[in-house]
Amino acid sequence: MGESQKLRFGLIGGGEGAFIGAVHRLAAELDGEAELVATCAGSNPEKARAFGAKRYRVDPSRSYGSTQELSRAEAALPESQRIHYVIIATPNHTHVPIAAEALDAGFHVVSDKPLAADLQSAENLLQCHQGSNRKVAVTYNYTGYPMVREARALIASGAVGAIRRVQCEYLQGWLANAIDADNKQANWRTDPARAGAAGCFGDIGSHAENLVHFVTDLEIESLCADLSTFVPGRRLDDDGNVLLRFEGGAKGVISASQVAFGEENALTIRVYGDRGSLTWAQQEPNSLILRSMGKAMQILRTGGGDVAPPTAAATRLPSGHPEGFLEAFANVYRGFHADIRGEKTAIYPRLEDGVRGMRFLDRVVASSAAGGVWLQMEKSA
Amino acid sequence: MGESQKLRFGLIGGGEGAFIGAVHRLAAELDGEAELVATCAGSNPEKARAFGAKRYRVDPSRSYGSTQELSRAEAALPESQRIHYVIIATPNHTHVPIAAEALDAGFHVVSDKPLAADLQSAENLLQCHQGSNRKVAVTYNYTGYPMVREARALIASGAVGAIRRVQCEYLQGWLANAIDADNKQANWRTDPARAGAAGCFGDIGSHAENLVHFVTDLEIESLCADLSTFVPGRRLDDDGNVLLRFEGGAKGVISASQVAFGEENALTIRVYGDRGSLTWAQQEPNSLILRSMGKAMQILRTGGGDVAPPTAAATRLPSGHPEGFLEAFANVYRGFHADIRGEKTAIYPRLEDGVRGMRFLDRVVASSAAGGVWLQMEKSA
Amino acid sequence: MGESQKLRFGLIGGGEGAFIGAVHRLAAELDGEAELVATCAGSNPEKARAFGAKRYRVDPSRSYGSTQELSRAEAALPESQRIHYVIIATPNHTHVPIAAEALDAGFHVVSDKPLAADLQSAENLLQCHQGSNRKVAVTYNYTGYPMVREARALIASGAVGAIRRVQCEYLQGWLANAIDADNKQANWRTDPARAGAAGCFGDIGSHAENLVHFVTDLEIESLCADLSTFVPGRRLDDDGNVLLRFEGGAKGVISASQVAFGEENALTIRVYGDRGSLTWAQQEPNSLILRSMGKAMQILRTGGGDVAPPTAAATRLPSGHPEGFLEAFANVYRGFHADIRGEKTAIYPRLEDGVRGMRFLDRVVASSAAGGVWLQMEKSA
Amino acid sequence: MGESQKLRFGLIGGGEGAFIGAVHRLAAELDGEAELVATCAGSNPEKARAFGAKRYRVDPSRSYGSTQELSRAEAALPESQRIHYVIIATPNHTHVPIAAEALDAGFHVVSDKPLAADLQSAENLLQCHQGSNRKVAVTYNYTGYPMVREARALIASGAVGAIRRVQCEYLQGWLANAIDADNKQANWRTDPARAGAAGCFGDIGSHAENLVHFVTDLEIESLCADLSTFVPGRRLDDDGNVLLRFEGGAKGVISASQVAFGEENALTIRVYGDRGSLTWAQQEPNSLILRSMGKAMQILRTGGGDVAPPTAAATRLPSGHPEGFLEAFANVYRGFHADIRGEKTAIYPRLEDGVRGMRFLDRVVASSAAGGVWLQMEKSA
Repeated sequence: MGESQKLRFGLIGGGEGAFIGAVHRLAAELDGEAELVATCAGSNPEKARAFGAKRYRVDPSRSYGSTQELSRAEAALPESQRIHYVIIATPNHTHVPIAAEALDAGFHVVSDKPLAADLQSAENLLQCHQGSNRKVAVTYNYTGYPMVREARALIASGAVGAIRRVQCEYLQGWLANAIDADNKQANWRTDPARAGAAGCFGDIGSHAENLVHFVTDLEIESLCADLSTFVPGRRLDDDGNVLLRFEGGAKGVISASQVAFGEENALTIRVYGDRGSLTWAQQEPNSLILRSMGKAMQILRTGGGDVAPPTAAATRLPSGHPEGFLEAFANVYRGFHADIRGEKTAIYPRLEDGVRGMRFLDRVVASSAAGGVWLQMEKSA
Repeated sequence: MGESQKLRFGLIGGGEGAFIGAVHRLAAELDGEAELVATCAGSNPEKARAFGAKRYRVDPSRSYGSTQELSRAEAALPESQRIHYVIIATPNHTHVPIAAEALDAGFHVVSDKPLAADLQSAENLLQCHQGSNRKVAVTYNYTGYPMVREARALIASGAVGAIRRVQCEYLQGWLANAIDADNKQANWRTDPARAGAAGCFGDIGSHAENLVHFVTDLEIESLCADLSTFVPGRRLDDDGNVLLRFEGGAKGVISASQVAFGEENALTIRVYGDRGSLTWAQQEPNSLILRSMGKAMQILRTGGGDVAPPTAAATRLPSGHPEGFLEAFANVYRGFHADIRGEKTAIYPRLEDGVRGMRFLDRVVASSAAGGVWLQMEKSA
Repeated sequence: MGESQKLRFGLIGGGEGAFIGAVHRLAAELDGEAELVATCAGSNPEKARAFGAKRYRVDPSRSYGSTQELSRAEAALPESQRIHYVIIATPNHTHVPIAAEALDAGFHVVSDKPLAADLQSAENLLQCHQGSNRKVAVTYNYTGYPMVREARALIASGAVGAIRRVQCEYLQGWLANAIDADNKQANWRTDPARAGAAGCFGDIGSHAENLVHFVTDLEIESLCADLSTFVPGRRLDDDGNVLLRFEGGAKGVISASQVAFGEENALTIRVYGDRGSLTWAQQEPNSLILRSMGKAMQILRTGGGDVAPPTAAATRLPSGHPEGFLEAFANVYRGFHADIRGEKTAIYPRLEDGVRGMRFLDRVVASSAAGGVWLQMEKSA
Repeated sequence: MGESQKLRFGLIGGGEGAFIGAVHRLAAELDGEAELVATCAGSNPEKARAFGAKRYRVDPSRSYGSTQELSRAEAALPESQRIHYVIIATPNHTHVPIAAEALDAGFHVVSDKPLAADLQSAENLLQCHQGSNRKVAVTYNYTGYPMVREARALIASGAVGAIRRVQCEYLQGWLANAIDADNKQANWRTDPARAGAAGCFGDIGSHAENLVHFVTDLEIESLCADLSTFVPGRRLDDDGNVLLRFEGGAKGVISASQVAFGEENALTIRVYGDRGSLTWAQQEPNSLILRSMGKAMQILRTGGGDVAPPTAAATRLPSGHPEGFLEAFANVYRGFHADIRGEKTAIYPRLEDGVRGMRFLDRVVASSAAGGVWLQMEKSA
């Protein structure tokens, strides 16, 4: 495809009352590299058709009522009009079937995280995908922040030495109380049939696991989890702590909560090695604290000089011009778009990352269910 | 025009090596309400034509070599294709002539700030514009931050009582040293012929003045300025402090510097009244500190509950999902687009704000040139 | 004893190269309520005699060479000259025998923490002390900060509702590398014979446990610990994480490390309830973050208005005049002095707190040694 | 005098309802180098005698009713009992007469700031003191913070290059409203007869001037002041801004306010040179931000390694153990005590600093009274 041509995509999800669908669209379009041309905006066909055309201004003929309709109709369009990829921004249990259908139809796929509602279906998808030349991204969007990329690059370059301790927290408070019956986002996230066996951990603990992996490149060897459900009547965990032992001897803790009263979206990671340490916090994402051997504490800043190439490539503005959540999310799309266009070094979270995340969730839930025992992580096949 | 139709715009400026042109484009397009369809990307016609098509992916037939060419050709297009507005992202001395030409051709106008290189031409533009139904925005983009809007709303509602003291600073360090001959952005900003009589104050002091006015609604009565040029050979101020006396008795200070070594883009405002105070800092834009009578210090957060309608309208994400510079800039475009579409309550900086800014710069330069004497501000005609 | 009379104390420990002995002295004397009149400044009698007189300016006749010497000689002095209490600032394994000896001699006792090198001797001391009218303080000094007291008072008053999640960390980096042979402070802390079975957890994890108890008043029901020794050749833990289950259903995590590269003395506590949350960090001790139902985040400040009486009583200066580590430490002594003088409501950590701390350490070490299993905490007898 | 002997001092001021007298005592005694043995605790002789003995536990025979009484009686005591110095913690207009009397009686002197209520009497004191071997300290206590000393040392060593811009603010809010008739501290500070011609500037602006001089070693060449009195009925300035031109070409601003609603004790200084910059804030005094050529922003910390000797000498604790206002104040006394004991390199603010401060206040008041004109600073004789 031509450099000058925008990529075209279809958005699945993002219906009335949804949040993340519109974010995907903003992020995908931010750099002017792609445009939304088709939607399937909700599970009710009629509403979806009406809402897609109205809310997203797509051509009414491409505001579809079901994913099947979308796949069939788009596949039938001439290549110059047809979508290149679909974005799946729906409840967890539908990610895999929709992704499989879209891959079958020849489209690349962006799936929200976690990749699935259970490990088995994630692994099935991985197996089906073997040998395909279609690209799959899983939107662990926090990997898109420039300072997260810098943290990864610094660690890879030995700036903190051999890692000993990793602490990652993801604390929110928005589910601290029983939720309203009409809160769409909260409802499916607390329903095992749609969210899967992990509640809070599926929704945000999975981000923490991915961030740890992305930044440190460490593999979890075993873990011990203690999940809780604090809000009466809730059917899934809304809080938990997990002890980690990594291959090679490092230790870690992941804490996640959606009942941490007053917390907004407090994702932080700290990595301590034998020669230095790094601290990053999503709510002030443009700073990265580096402490290293024989030096005063340093604050590295987005847009500052002398950073790794992936950091620079993820930065749009000079230092002091804050870049935020949408820009980071858009960087995942930048990588995905680059991969579609054939760039070999594109950085973005892929299908394998999504499957690794499901293995983590599977073990976390099992460990906690067994009373908080240590379980080995299964290795990738 | 139809709700469902995107607004079309042409970008003037944003040539090779430029910074702010691309920012305007991202900001204007962020919400999917407008799209770039025409460019005039530089002062050299041939280069501009080639660069616009390549960099911005506009149709080559609409990548123009001069503003005249753009105005003429676009005006000749059918209304369904023709641009609705132009964005002027060029050196200061060209803003007014290009704006006048675009208004003549029937387009709405977005001009970067300061509005002009001198007060007289700004006032001429204001006069010419009287009675026109074309809209003019001046991109004092910092007014687009949700917490800046909240500050304005809180002050208007009496949250700090009667204002006594205002402190506004805008400190950068990027011009702390002599600049390279090929640094386009730095070069025109330090050239009186292109920037006007105010250097640092024209470039960023003008933002400070506008922010003070937007947040407090106070009018400057008189001022006393002490500008400096620290870098040898520089022909315009690169630093300065201005004492302010406002109508009604409040006092203030505006400090601006582009030689404040190590500062990135440190715009801050603090407003102290007889019953409370507010503090906001652009580099951590999602927090607003409120201290009020008989209460502990409060940190208000973007996306937090119970805010004024203009704050909510300027917010895209839940709290804890940082919104940054581009989102704020895009909020200026939101207001401008809304005004074009006929919304009465659209908030964005207008031509009058641009002219007020020029009056401020005129007095600042005159005061300093006279050794730092107090001068009255002229009232709006 | 008379109000106007200063209390007299003897300092045991604080020899050459020591750190905490001098801190005890500054803290005990800070308010002009007590004065150092006797020392036993080291384990070598001759050096101790010389050093006490020189370093602490006590009368040479009261710079003793051994604790026995001190007890005997002081007990023989007339009541108007004799010390009222001893401060024990020596390695852990000596706390209990010295305390027992001092109590026998009729003195009140201040012991550094942890109370002992093993649980059994701590419980023995507790048993011996039953019925005595001598006072024993254990210097969990972080309880002395005004904002820690305010946190306790707020939680007791229901400001955060029912507690769900507690996170307490104490991270240091000073033992990140192998230590010099002549580093006195580091040496005994990493020697099981002198420090006890817990290294990092004995030294600083014990502070975390006490802080959690002081602030929340929760009792640990069971715990699961994973301790590590990262520095080669070290014989005790230098890092660890402990999952907590509290009576009543709350959960928690305590993390402690002395190999957290670059951390100074990063003790923090966060408490999340069903109606609010609190955050405090020792390195910025004069702020306490409170988030509560339907309100913006509040920053409470030392010296600010409308605080609980114990908070006010622990504050010496108006707000904005930072109070630090020494002032907090001195507040422990304030409480201890007040108790000696007969004030019923004196707040300071007592023998029971020291014993509870030893129970915690005992279980932490046992859990970790068993591979990280859940163990019940023994109840107080 | 012997090394092992404590210095003895008398406290003048610190009567009922006073604040700073008790602070002086704590600070002077903090290191165990000096002890309070005499008082003159208030202007009413009978109350002073009673209060001194009770509040400060001095021997009733040395709780004096007037300064004359104190000078006469102490001078008559044998040298081994007599005080070495007096601390003057009384309203401004009494500093000079009390200091003169104490010097006459042979005592060293510590005076609170500003040195006097008017420039003339300060200069008289300086003249009288010529050739005396008595020491005079003026308690510009903020110079005692370790990180302030480090800032001074870094600047002297060229770490920021040639200074261009200095910004110093001292903002408080405690006088934002009309004060109660029985608020002793507020009352004399707003009374020209006792405070002198400068209100807010005398009380805290003087600290700012001294801090600028201490840190930068720059001399003010001329200034332009705009003082305000916001609270109705107040007879002295409660707010103001001063533009500064330093010898050698640097520029500056000093802002001070006691009506900055909600501010506690917000003293900050920022110094920008052509190769670096420094920022320090009194409310988080243990951090110093350094930005220098080609490096990321660094946070230097009290107790951190590799600092200048005066910084190390002003530090009592390892990093991460916050030192506060009292410790900094005590460092002024450390320097003063060292000077009395004959150390040549003792650092503390002296009589000359007090006189310089009065020159500054004199010009500030005169400039503002003339409508805000530029006035030259008189040079030291």
